[in-house]
Amino acid sequence: MDVAREPLLTDRNPLPDALDPRIAAQLRFVVEVDRLKTVLRQSPLAAASRRENDAEHSWHLALMVILLAEHADEPIDVGHTVKLVVVHDLVEIHAGDTPLYDDVGARTQEAREQAAADRLFGLLPGDQARELRALWDEFEARETPESRFAKGMDRLEPLLLNWMAGGGTWRTPGVTADAVRARKAHIGAASAALGEAALVLIDEGERRGWVRSAERTGDGRPAAPPA
Amino acid sequence: MDVAREPLLTDRNPLPDALDPRIAAQLRFVVEVDRLKTVLRQSPLAAASRRENDAEHSWHLALMVILLAEHADEPIDVGHTVKLVVVHDLVEIHAGDTPLYDDVGARTQEAREQAAADRLFGLLPGDQARELRALWDEFEARETPESRFAKGMDRLEPLLLNWMAGGGTWRTPGVTADAVRARKAHIGAASAALGEAALVLIDEGERRGWVRSAERTGDGRPAAPPA
Repeated sequence: MDVAREPLLTDRNPLPDALDPRIAAQLRFVVEVDRLKTVLRQSPLAAASRRENDAEHSWHLALMVILLAEHADEPIDVGHTVKLVVVHDLVEIHAGDTPLYDDVGARTQEAREQAAADRLFGLLPGDQARELRALWDEFEARETPESRFAKGMDRLEPLLLNWMAGGGTWRTPGVTADAVRARKAHIGAASAALGEAALVLIDEGERRGWVRSAERTGDGRPAAPPA
Repeated sequence: MDVAREPLLTDRNPLPDALDPRIAAQLRFVVEVDRLKTVLRQSPLAAASRRENDAEHSWHLALMVILLAEHADEPIDVGHTVKLVVVHDLVEIHAGDTPLYDDVGARTQEAREQAAADRLFGLLPGDQARELRALWDEFEARETPESRFAKGMDRLEPLLLNWMAGGGTWRTPGVTADAVRARKAHIGAASAALGEAALVLIDEGERRGWVRSAERTGDGRPAAPPA
Protein backbone atom coordinates (compact mmCIF):
# COMPACT_ATOMS: atom_id res chain seq x y z
CA MET A 1 0.00 0.00 0.00
CA ASP A 2 1.24 3.46 -0.89
CA VAL A 3 1.25 5.31 2.40
CA ALA A 4 1.39 8.68 0.62
CA ARG A 5 -2.17 8.12 -0.65
CA GLU A 6 -3.77 7.09 2.61
CA PRO A 7 -6.45 9.57 3.72
CA LEU A 8 -5.83 11.59 6.87
CA LEU A 9 -8.09 11.34 9.89
CA THR A 10 -8.99 15.01 9.44
CA ASP A 11 -10.12 14.29 5.86
CA ARG A 12 -13.20 12.75 7.51
CA ASN A 13 -13.87 15.90 9.46
CA PRO A 14 -11.78 18.80 8.16
CA LEU A 15 -10.67 21.52 10.54
CA PRO A 16 -12.38 24.90 9.99
CA ASP A 17 -10.89 27.16 7.29
CA ALA A 18 -10.87 30.03 9.77
CA LEU A 19 -7.84 28.56 11.60
CA ASP A 20 -4.42 30.10 11.13
CA PRO A 21 -2.74 27.95 8.42
CA ARG A 22 0.34 27.05 10.48
CA ILE A 23 -1.76 26.08 13.50
CA ALA A 24 -4.13 24.13 11.23
CA ALA A 25 -1.18 22.08 9.86
CA GLN A 26 0.05 21.41 13.38
CA LEU A 27 -3.39 20.37 14.62
CA ARG A 28 -3.93 18.07 11.61
CA PHE A 29 -0.68 16.34 12.59
CA VAL A 30 -1.73 16.20 16.26
CA VAL A 31 -4.97 14.48 15.24
CA GLU A 32 -3.24 12.15 12.76
CA VAL A 33 -0.82 10.78 15.39
CA ASP A 34 -3.83 9.57 17.38
CA ARG A 35 -3.24 6.46 15.24
CA LEU A 36 -0.21 5.57 17.40
CA LYS A 37 -2.75 4.44 20.02
CA THR A 38 -3.87 1.70 17.63
CA VAL A 39 -0.44 0.25 16.77
CA LEU A 40 -0.15 -2.89 18.87
CA ARG A 41 3.12 -4.25 20.20
CA GLN A 42 3.81 -7.82 21.26
CA SER A 43 4.31 -6.91 24.93
CA PRO A 44 1.55 -7.93 27.36
CA LEU A 45 0.54 -5.25 29.86
CA ALA A 46 1.27 -5.93 33.54
CA ALA A 47 -1.99 -4.23 34.62
CA ALA A 48 -4.47 -5.78 32.15
CA SER A 49 -4.93 -8.81 29.90
CA ARG A 50 -4.13 -7.22 26.58
CA ARG A 51 -1.18 -6.15 24.47
CA GLU A 52 0.41 -2.74 24.78
CA ASN A 53 0.11 -0.05 22.11
CA ASP A 54 2.84 2.29 20.90
CA ALA A 55 1.43 5.43 22.55
CA GLU A 56 1.30 3.75 25.96
CA HIS A 57 4.79 2.36 25.43
CA SER A 58 6.16 5.79 24.46
CA TRP A 59 4.66 7.35 27.58
CA HIS A 60 6.14 4.61 29.73
CA LEU A 61 9.61 5.22 28.29
CA ALA A 62 9.28 8.94 28.98
CA LEU A 63 8.59 8.26 32.64
CA MET A 64 11.45 5.76 32.81
CA VAL A 65 13.86 8.34 31.39
CA ILE A 66 12.86 10.79 34.12
CA LEU A 67 13.30 8.18 36.87
CA LEU A 68 16.32 6.26 35.66
CA ALA A 69 18.48 8.96 34.04
CA GLU A 70 20.68 8.95 37.15
CA HIS A 71 22.00 5.55 36.06
CA ALA A 72 23.24 6.76 32.65
CA ASP A 73 26.98 6.16 32.28
CA GLU A 74 27.39 9.35 30.25
CA PRO A 75 25.77 12.67 31.26
CA ILE A 76 22.44 13.12 29.44
CA ASP A 77 20.00 15.99 28.94
CA VAL A 78 16.84 14.49 30.43
CA GLY A 79 14.42 16.80 28.61
CA HIS A 80 16.01 16.03 25.25
CA THR A 81 15.99 12.29 25.97
CA VAL A 82 12.28 12.47 26.81
CA LYS A 83 11.66 14.19 23.45
CA LEU A 84 13.47 11.33 21.69
CA VAL A 85 11.28 8.65 23.25
CA VAL A 86 8.07 10.63 22.66
CA VAL A 87 8.71 10.69 18.89
CA HIS A 88 10.69 7.44 18.45
CA ASP A 89 7.78 5.21 17.37
CA LEU A 90 5.74 7.72 15.32
CA VAL A 91 6.76 6.17 12.01
CA GLU A 92 5.11 2.92 13.07
CA ILE A 93 1.77 4.66 12.38
CA HIS A 94 2.30 3.65 8.75
CA ALA A 95 5.13 1.12 9.00
CA GLY A 96 3.70 -0.95 11.86
CA ASP A 97 5.57 -2.41 14.80
CA THR A 98 8.37 -4.85 14.00
CA PRO A 99 8.50 -7.40 16.83
CA LEU A 100 11.87 -7.69 18.53
CA TYR A 101 12.26 -11.34 17.60
CA ASP A 102 10.95 -11.00 13.99
CA ASP A 103 14.10 -11.29 11.85
CA VAL A 104 12.13 -11.38 8.57
CA GLY A 105 10.23 -8.17 9.31
CA ALA A 106 13.49 -6.54 10.37
CA ARG A 107 14.86 -6.85 6.80
CA THR A 108 12.20 -4.56 5.31
CA GLN A 109 11.82 -2.40 8.41
CA GLU A 110 14.13 0.42 7.36
CA ALA A 111 12.54 1.01 3.93
CA ARG A 112 9.03 0.88 5.39
CA GLU A 113 9.94 3.30 8.13
CA GLN A 114 11.64 5.79 5.80
CA ALA A 115 8.53 5.97 3.59
CA ALA A 116 6.37 6.37 6.67
CA ALA A 117 8.59 9.18 7.99
CA ASP A 118 8.36 11.07 4.66
CA ARG A 119 4.58 10.85 4.76
CA LEU A 120 4.00 11.65 8.40
CA PHE A 121 6.53 14.40 9.05
CA GLY A 122 5.59 15.94 5.67
CA LEU A 123 2.28 16.98 7.21
CA LEU A 124 4.08 19.52 9.39
CA PRO A 125 5.41 22.97 8.52
CA GLY A 126 8.89 22.48 7.01
CA ASP A 127 10.90 23.60 10.03
CA GLN A 128 9.03 21.23 12.33
CA ALA A 129 9.15 18.38 9.82
CA ARG A 130 12.94 18.73 9.93
CA GLU A 131 12.99 18.97 13.72
CA LEU A 132 10.97 15.79 14.28
CA ARG A 133 12.82 13.93 11.56
CA ALA A 134 16.11 14.92 13.22
CA LEU A 135 14.89 13.58 16.57
CA TRP A 136 13.88 10.29 14.95
CA ASP A 137 17.17 10.04 13.04
CA GLU A 138 19.09 10.74 16.25
CA PHE A 139 17.22 7.98 18.06
CA GLU A 140 17.87 5.49 15.27
CA ALA A 141 21.57 6.33 14.86
CA ARG A 142 22.41 5.95 18.57
CA GLU A 143 25.42 8.25 18.22
CA THR A 144 24.55 10.54 21.14
CA PRO A 145 24.40 9.67 24.87
CA GLU A 146 20.71 10.68 24.90
CA SER A 147 19.79 8.35 22.03
CA ARG A 148 21.72 5.46 23.58
CA PHE A 149 19.87 5.92 26.86
CA ALA A 150 16.53 6.19 25.04
CA LYS A 151 17.26 2.93 23.22
CA GLY A 152 18.19 1.26 26.50
CA MET A 153 14.80 2.22 27.96
CA ASP A 154 13.13 0.94 24.78
CA ARG A 155 14.61 -2.47 25.60
CA LEU A 156 14.17 -2.37 29.38
CA GLU A 157 10.44 -1.63 29.35
CA PRO A 158 9.33 -4.80 27.49
CA LEU A 159 11.76 -6.81 29.62
CA LEU A 160 9.87 -5.69 32.73
CA LEU A 161 6.53 -6.51 31.10
CA ASN A 162 7.81 -9.95 30.09
CA TRP A 163 9.03 -10.51 33.64
CA MET A 164 5.57 -9.65 34.99
CA ALA A 165 3.97 -12.03 32.46
CA GLY A 166 6.19 -14.93 33.50
CA GLY A 167 7.97 -14.92 30.15
CA GLY A 168 5.72 -13.11 27.68
CA THR A 169 7.44 -12.86 24.30
CA TRP A 170 10.47 -14.74 25.67
CA ARG A 171 8.29 -17.80 25.01
CA THR A 172 8.25 -17.08 21.25
CA PRO A 173 9.38 -20.25 19.39
CA GLY A 174 13.11 -20.16 18.69
CA VAL A 175 13.93 -17.55 21.33
CA THR A 176 16.58 -18.52 23.88
CA ALA A 177 17.95 -16.81 26.98
CA ASP A 178 21.10 -15.93 25.04
CA ALA A 179 19.04 -14.32 22.27
CA VAL A 180 17.25 -12.25 24.91
CA ARG A 181 20.59 -11.23 26.43
CA ALA A 182 21.86 -10.19 22.99
CA ARG A 183 18.80 -7.99 22.31
CA LYS A 184 19.15 -6.39 25.72
CA ALA A 185 22.78 -5.35 25.22
CA HIS A 186 21.48 -1.83 24.45
CA ILE A 187 20.58 -1.48 28.12
CA GLY A 188 24.13 -2.13 29.30
CA ALA A 189 25.48 0.16 26.58
CA ALA A 190 23.57 3.04 28.20
CA SER A 191 23.99 2.07 31.85
CA ALA A 192 26.15 -0.62 33.40
CA ALA A 193 23.90 -0.66 36.48
CA LEU A 194 20.69 -1.12 34.52
CA GLY A 195 22.39 -3.63 32.21
CA GLU A 196 23.30 -5.63 35.30
CA ALA A 197 19.70 -5.44 36.55
CA ALA A 198 18.46 -6.69 33.16
CA LEU A 199 20.78 -9.68 33.39
CA VAL A 200 19.53 -10.49 36.90
CA LEU A 201 15.97 -10.62 35.55
CA ILE A 202 16.89 -12.72 32.49
CA ASP A 203 19.02 -15.12 34.55
CA GLU A 204 16.18 -15.63 37.01
CA GLY A 205 13.68 -16.06 34.16
CA GLU A 206 15.92 -18.71 32.65
CA ARG A 207 16.19 -20.51 36.00
CA ARG A 208 12.40 -20.55 36.24
CA GLY A 209 12.02 -21.94 32.72
CA TRP A 210 10.31 -18.79 31.35
CA VAL A 211 12.81 -18.75 28.47
CA ARG A 212 14.65 -21.71 26.99
CA SER A 213 18.32 -22.07 27.87
CA ALA A 214 19.41 -23.08 24.35
CA GLU A 215 17.99 -24.03 20.99
CA ARG A 216 18.68 -27.73 20.48
CA THR A 217 19.72 -28.96 17.05
CA GLY A 218 18.60 -32.34 15.68
CA ASP A 219 21.60 -34.08 17.21
CA GLY A 220 20.96 -32.71 20.67
CA ARG A 221 23.77 -30.15 20.66
CA PRO A 222 22.96 -26.50 21.35
CA ALA A 223 22.55 -24.40 18.17
CA ALA A 224 24.94 -21.53 17.48
CA PRO A 225 24.12 -18.43 19.52
CA PRO A 226 22.46 -15.54 17.63
CA ALA A 227 24.69 -12.97 15.99
CA MET B 1 -11.07 1.65 49.80
CA ASP B 2 -7.82 2.41 51.57
CA VAL B 3 -5.37 2.85 48.73
CA ALA B 4 -2.41 2.36 51.09
CA ARG B 5 -3.41 -1.31 51.49
CA GLU B 6 -3.87 -2.18 47.83
CA PRO B 7 -1.34 -4.79 46.69
CA LEU B 8 1.29 -3.78 44.17
CA LEU B 9 1.53 -5.41 40.75
CA THR B 10 4.99 -6.71 41.71
CA ASP B 11 3.50 -8.40 44.78
CA ARG B 12 2.17 -10.97 42.28
CA ASN B 13 5.60 -11.55 40.86
CA PRO B 14 8.29 -10.02 43.08
CA LEU B 15 11.49 -8.72 41.52
CA PRO B 16 14.59 -10.82 42.35
CA ASP B 17 16.33 -10.08 45.67
CA ALA B 18 19.64 -9.85 43.82
CA LEU B 19 18.73 -6.40 42.42
CA ASP B 20 20.33 -3.29 43.84
CA PRO B 21 17.75 -1.95 46.38
CA ARG B 22 17.43 1.52 44.85
CA ILE B 23 17.01 0.12 41.36
CA ALA B 24 14.52 -2.44 42.68
CA ALA B 25 12.39 0.36 44.20
CA GLN B 26 12.51 2.31 40.94
CA LEU B 27 11.57 -0.74 38.87
CA ARG B 28 8.68 -1.62 41.21
CA PHE B 29 7.35 1.89 40.60
CA VAL B 30 7.90 1.57 36.84
CA VAL B 31 5.85 -1.63 36.84
CA GLU B 32 3.15 -0.19 39.12
CA VAL B 33 2.47 2.78 36.85
CA ASP B 34 1.53 0.33 34.08
CA ARG B 35 -1.90 0.80 35.67
CA LEU B 36 -2.19 4.24 34.05
CA LYS B 37 -2.89 2.35 30.80
CA THR B 38 -6.11 1.05 32.35
CA VAL B 39 -7.53 4.38 33.60
CA LEU B 40 -10.16 5.34 31.05
CA ARG B 41 -11.05 8.91 30.18
CA GLN B 42 -14.31 10.11 28.62
CA SER B 43 -12.64 11.21 25.38
CA PRO B 44 -13.28 9.06 22.30
CA LEU B 45 -10.19 8.30 20.18
CA ALA B 46 -10.09 9.77 16.68
CA ALA B 47 -8.38 6.64 15.30
CA ALA B 48 -10.52 3.89 16.87
CA SER B 49 -13.96 3.29 18.37
CA ARG B 50 -13.04 3.29 22.02
CA ARG B 51 -12.27 5.68 24.85
CA GLU B 52 -8.79 7.00 25.53
CA ASN B 53 -6.72 5.95 28.53
CA ASP B 54 -4.53 8.18 30.67
CA ALA B 55 -1.19 6.82 29.40
CA GLU B 56 -2.15 7.50 25.78
CA HIS B 57 -3.44 10.93 26.73
CA SER B 58 -0.21 11.78 28.60
CA TRP B 59 1.86 10.76 25.59
CA HIS B 60 -0.30 12.86 23.29
CA LEU B 61 0.18 15.93 25.51
CA ALA B 62 3.95 15.40 25.48
CA LEU B 63 4.00 15.47 21.69
CA MET B 64 1.73 18.55 21.64
CA VAL B 65 4.08 20.39 23.98
CA ILE B 66 6.99 19.69 21.61
CA LEU B 67 5.03 20.88 18.56
CA LEU B 68 3.04 23.78 19.98
CA ALA B 69 5.47 25.34 22.49
CA GLU B 70 6.21 28.09 19.95
CA HIS B 71 2.72 29.48 20.62
CA ALA B 72 3.28 29.93 24.36
CA ASP B 73 2.81 33.58 25.37
CA GLU B 74 5.53 33.32 28.03
CA PRO B 75 8.91 31.63 27.35
CA ILE B 76 8.80 27.98 28.50
CA ASP B 77 11.38 25.24 29.03
CA VAL B 78 10.06 22.57 26.66
CA GLY B 79 11.82 19.64 28.36
CA HIS B 80 10.47 20.64 31.76
CA THR B 81 6.95 21.09 30.36
CA VAL B 82 7.12 17.61 28.84
CA LYS B 83 8.09 16.22 32.25
CA LEU B 84 5.03 17.91 33.78
CA VAL B 85 2.61 16.30 31.33
CA VAL B 86 4.26 12.87 31.62
CA VAL B 87 3.59 12.79 35.39
CA HIS B 88 0.41 14.93 35.59
CA ASP B 89 -2.12 12.08 35.63
CA LEU B 90 -0.19 9.47 37.65
CA VAL B 91 -2.32 9.98 40.75
CA GLU B 92 -5.38 8.86 38.77
CA ILE B 93 -3.99 5.32 39.11
CA HIS B 94 -5.67 5.24 42.51
CA ALA B 95 -7.97 8.29 42.38
CA GLY B 96 -9.48 7.61 38.94
CA ASP B 97 -10.22 10.12 36.22
CA THR B 98 -12.61 12.94 37.10
CA PRO B 99 -14.52 13.82 33.92
CA LEU B 100 -14.26 17.47 32.90
CA TYR B 101 -18.01 18.00 33.18
CA ASP B 102 -18.49 16.03 36.46
CA ASP B 103 -19.06 18.74 39.10
CA VAL B 104 -19.90 16.22 41.83
CA GLY B 105 -16.70 14.19 41.35
CA ALA B 106 -14.73 17.43 41.29
CA ARG B 107 -15.70 18.13 44.93
CA THR B 108 -13.88 15.03 46.27
CA GLN B 109 -11.17 15.05 43.63
CA GLU B 110 -8.50 16.85 45.64
CA ALA B 111 -8.70 14.60 48.72
CA ARG B 112 -8.73 11.45 46.58
CA GLU B 113 -5.76 12.63 44.59
CA GLN B 114 -3.72 13.64 47.63
CA ALA B 115 -4.14 10.16 49.16
CA ALA B 116 -3.23 8.59 45.84
CA ALA B 117 -0.11 10.74 45.56
CA ASP B 118 1.05 9.73 49.05
CA ARG B 119 0.67 6.07 48.16
CA LEU B 120 2.16 6.11 44.69
CA PHE B 121 5.11 8.46 45.10
CA GLY B 122 5.88 6.76 48.44
CA LEU B 123 7.05 3.71 46.50
CA LEU B 124 10.05 5.65 45.23
CA PRO B 125 13.33 6.48 47.00
CA GLY B 126 12.72 9.63 49.06
CA ASP B 127 14.54 12.07 46.79
CA GLN B 128 12.58 10.90 43.76
CA ALA B 129 9.29 10.80 45.64
CA ARG B 130 9.85 14.48 46.39
CA GLU B 131 10.85 15.24 42.78
CA LEU B 132 7.75 13.66 41.24
CA ARG B 133 5.48 15.12 43.88
CA ALA B 134 6.95 18.56 43.14
CA LEU B 135 6.27 18.12 39.42
CA TRP B 136 2.68 17.14 40.14
CA ASP B 137 2.20 20.01 42.60
CA GLU B 138 3.64 22.42 40.04
CA PHE B 139 1.21 21.20 37.39
CA GLU B 140 -1.75 21.53 39.74
CA ALA B 141 -0.83 25.00 41.04
CA ARG B 142 -0.40 26.56 37.57
CA GLU B 143 1.91 29.23 38.96
CA THR B 144 4.71 28.70 36.41
CA PRO B 145 4.60 29.34 32.64
CA GLU B 146 5.41 25.65 32.05
CA SER B 147 2.50 24.43 34.17
CA ARG B 148 0.10 26.87 32.53
CA PHE B 149 1.12 25.63 29.10
CA ALA B 150 0.84 21.99 30.21
CA LYS B 151 -2.69 22.67 31.49
CA GLY B 152 -3.60 24.35 28.22
CA MET B 153 -2.54 21.21 26.31
CA ASP B 154 -4.53 19.10 28.79
CA ARG B 155 -7.63 21.01 27.66
CA LEU B 156 -6.79 21.28 23.95
CA GLU B 157 -6.25 17.57 23.36
CA PRO B 158 -9.78 16.41 24.32
CA LEU B 159 -11.20 19.38 22.41
CA LEU B 160 -9.57 18.01 19.24
CA LEU B 161 -10.87 14.50 19.98
CA ASN B 162 -14.38 15.88 20.56
CA TRP B 163 -14.14 17.79 17.28
CA MET B 164 -13.20 14.58 15.45
CA ALA B 165 -16.11 12.76 17.11
CA GLY B 166 -18.65 15.39 16.02
CA GLY B 167 -19.21 16.50 19.60
CA GLY B 168 -18.07 13.65 21.86
CA THR B 169 -18.41 14.68 25.50
CA TRP B 170 -19.82 18.08 24.45
CA ARG B 171 -23.05 16.11 24.07
CA THR B 172 -23.10 15.30 27.81
CA PRO B 173 -26.53 16.33 29.23
CA GLY B 174 -26.39 19.84 30.67
CA VAL B 175 -23.26 20.90 28.79
CA THR B 176 -23.55 24.05 26.68
CA ALA B 177 -21.19 25.83 24.31
CA ASP B 178 -20.56 28.47 26.97
CA ALA B 179 -19.66 25.78 29.52
CA VAL B 180 -17.18 24.33 27.01
CA ARG B 181 -15.71 27.81 26.42
CA ALA B 182 -15.34 28.30 30.19
CA ARG B 183 -13.48 24.99 30.64
CA LYS B 184 -11.18 25.82 27.73
CA ALA B 185 -10.09 29.19 29.14
CA HIS B 186 -6.87 27.45 30.27
CA ILE B 187 -5.83 27.24 26.63
CA GLY B 188 -6.05 30.98 26.10
CA ALA B 189 -4.29 31.58 29.42
CA ALA B 190 -1.24 29.76 28.01
CA SER B 191 -1.42 30.94 24.42
CA ALA B 192 -3.63 33.59 22.84
CA ALA B 193 -3.16 31.98 19.41
CA LEU B 194 -4.19 28.51 20.58
CA GLY B 195 -7.01 29.97 22.67
CA GLU B 196 -8.30 31.62 19.50
CA ALA B 197 -8.03 28.31 17.61
CA ALA B 198 -10.01 26.58 20.36
CA LEU B 199 -12.78 29.16 20.06
CA VAL B 200 -12.92 28.67 16.29
CA LEU B 201 -13.50 24.94 16.84
CA ILE B 202 -16.12 25.46 19.57
CA ASP B 203 -17.96 28.14 17.57
CA GLU B 204 -18.09 25.89 14.53
CA GLY B 205 -19.21 22.93 16.68
CA GLU B 206 -21.99 25.08 18.09
CA ARG B 207 -23.07 26.14 14.58
CA ARG B 208 -23.25 22.48 13.59
CA GLY B 209 -25.35 21.57 16.63
CA TRP B 210 -22.63 19.36 18.20
CA VAL B 211 -23.03 21.25 21.47
CA ARG B 212 -26.14 23.06 22.70
CA SER B 213 -26.12 26.84 22.54
CA ALA B 214 -27.75 27.32 25.96
CA GLU B 215 -29.41 25.38 28.73
CA ARG B 216 -33.10 26.24 28.70
CA THR B 217 -34.90 26.67 32.02
CA GLY B 218 -38.51 25.61 32.50
CA ASP B 219 -39.79 29.00 31.38
CA GLY B 220 -37.80 28.96 28.15
CA ARG B 221 -35.16 31.45 29.22
CA PRO B 222 -31.47 30.46 29.06
CA ALA B 223 -30.05 29.23 32.38
CA ALA B 224 -27.28 31.16 34.09
CA PRO B 225 -23.87 30.51 32.51
CA PRO B 226 -21.49 28.26 34.51
CA ALA B 227 -19.21 29.89 37.04
